[in-house]
Amino acid sequence: MLDYKLLEALAAVVDCGGFEKAGEVLDISQSAVSQRIRTLEIRLGQPVLVRSPMPRATPAGQRLLNHVQQVRLLERDLGSAIPSLSEPAARLRIAVNADSLATWWAGRVGRFCARENLLLDLVIEDQDIGLRRMREGDVAACLCSSPQPVSGGRCVPLGVMTYLPLATPDYIHHHFPGGLTDARLERAPAIIFGPNDQLQHRFLAQVGYHGKFPHHLCPSSEGFVKLALAGMGYGMIPEIQARSDITAGRLASIAPGHQLDVPLYWHFWRHGGEMMERLTAELRQP
Amino acid sequence: MLDYKLLEALAAVVDCGGFEKAGEVLDISQSAVSQRIRTLEIRLGQPVLVRSPMPRATPAGQRLLNHVQQVRLLERDLGSAIPSLSEPAARLRIAVNADSLATWWAGRVGRFCARENLLLDLVIEDQDIGLRRMREGDVAACLCSSPQPVSGGRCVPLGVMTYLPLATPDYIHHHFPGGLTDARLERAPAIIFGPNDQLQHRFLAQVGYHGKFPHHLCPSSEGFVKLALAGMGYGMIPEIQARSDITAGRLASIAPGHQLDVPLYWHFWRHGGEMMERLTAELRQP
Repeated sequence: MLDYKLLEALAAVVDCGGFEKAGEVLDISQSAVSQRIRTLEIRLGQPVLVRSPMPRATPAGQRLLNHVQQVRLLERDLGSAIPSLSEPAARLRIAVNADSLATWWAGRVGRFCARENLLLDLVIEDQDIGLRRMREGDVAACLCSSPQPVSGGRCVPLGVMTYLPLATPDYIHHHFPGGLTDARLERAPAIIFGPNDQLQHRFLAQVGYHGKFPHHLCPSSEGFVKLALAGMGYGMIPEIQARSDITAGRLASIAPGHQLDVPLYWHFWRHGGEMMERLTAELRQP
Repeated sequence: MLDYKLLEALAAVVDCGGFEKAGEVLDISQSAVSQRIRTLEIRLGQPVLVRSPMPRATPAGQRLLNHVQQVRLLERDLGSAIPSLSEPAARLRIAVNADSLATWWAGRVGRFCARENLLLDLVIEDQDIGLRRMREGDVAACLCSSPQPVSGGRCVPLGVMTYLPLATPDYIHHHFPGGLTDARLERAPAIIFGPNDQLQHRFLAQVGYHGKFPHHLCPSSEGFVKLALAGMGYGMIPEIQARSDITAGRLASIAPGHQLDVPLYWHFWRHGGEMMERLTAELRQP
């Protein structure tokens, strides 16, 4: 069998972003960590880590990390069959889209995590990066809007998230006094999540506008809502996130009747073990 | 003088993360963008971009980007003196810590941005990365907890953010029925923002605990609060962010009387132009 001490050292260096912290986590010295990585590389005949600026896995190292994470998931199942084997708590690393994490995610999985003694390492990624990290073995599951399963993975639908084009009533009164027009959309500042965020463009196409528009960039789900509440722009906000602000009259739609429904899919490894199956079943409950 | 068409192409490629998108933004073809970058590199006698996997600036390229951003800030000032020169809106790229963005930031700068027709490109970074991006010319200002100005920059204090160790009353009742003890802290799941988040460790040191503790990782300010509200763990949450949840009895301190005050500093370029001076003055208002 493989020497899992060496693989564990590799996983710790990549997880912790450095040799020193990996040593702390593994309770060994930094030089012992380095020695394990070197031994692994000598056995493999190729590097598993790029050292700088931050340690990250080479393609060979990534295949090893994928393997380590799968073995860990299988160990969890063993741990529930033979409790004396199990560590204090299981860990799962999952990529989640920012808006889900800012809204419904914790409410749906919180009870499950407490019951199963499961700890989560959450990473926020858009879908392309999230799925790439899953292929690379860096995360065990990914919640995103792509329906395309990765090789070795499965994918189940989890419903849709509805987005509304919202701004403060003052903002709407100032920028769109007579409703949306091309001339006004060309000047009214919008808020978008990042350069890859296409929601705003899709909404504008829906109302028949295809030109440029000024915009703030704000890659934070909660920050996004705060910018809208401060009257800095209009933006596509999940309806569940804005509900209380809409009810209280702090936010309103700039185009009543228009919305975008973004589907959500749960991607997970086909052989991810029983804990993953149970988490998936929990998420699929209506 | 330098050929700013070439520098603008460099900035667009780095901002947009690719040649094709840079072409769209500049309204020229992708090959015209490549040609400008090549011309710039021939004139300089060295590369300004590393091409893969994502285009990013070489050290020489970063010095040019820094220069471009400073020139743009000075052009803003010219624009307010000679309005016919000014573009529709100014842009500033700023690194902000996640908790400020999730709480007070927009409320403090929203009115200013609307008045000055200023658009923000916000990036979320912890202080080390934020200050490095400022040194590299990628952002014009950085809000973080480091009091150490970068070379060429100034730094002013903006007060403190108070963090409390919060969880749901149910969680506290279940995990800390008789208050905090080492045995219970060793088993009770915490929530931390990321591997570099030291707030949790500092709080535990304050109550005299120096051992390990199980934890969820959640690099989202809003997601962090949601995890706490779902009873998944306790964590250090900004008092201003949790105030309504505390008042409503949904969150409570696991160690009443204990808090951490984290100072905030505003870093900006010394010669950042009048817009930056005015934004700084706005932020310094009590």
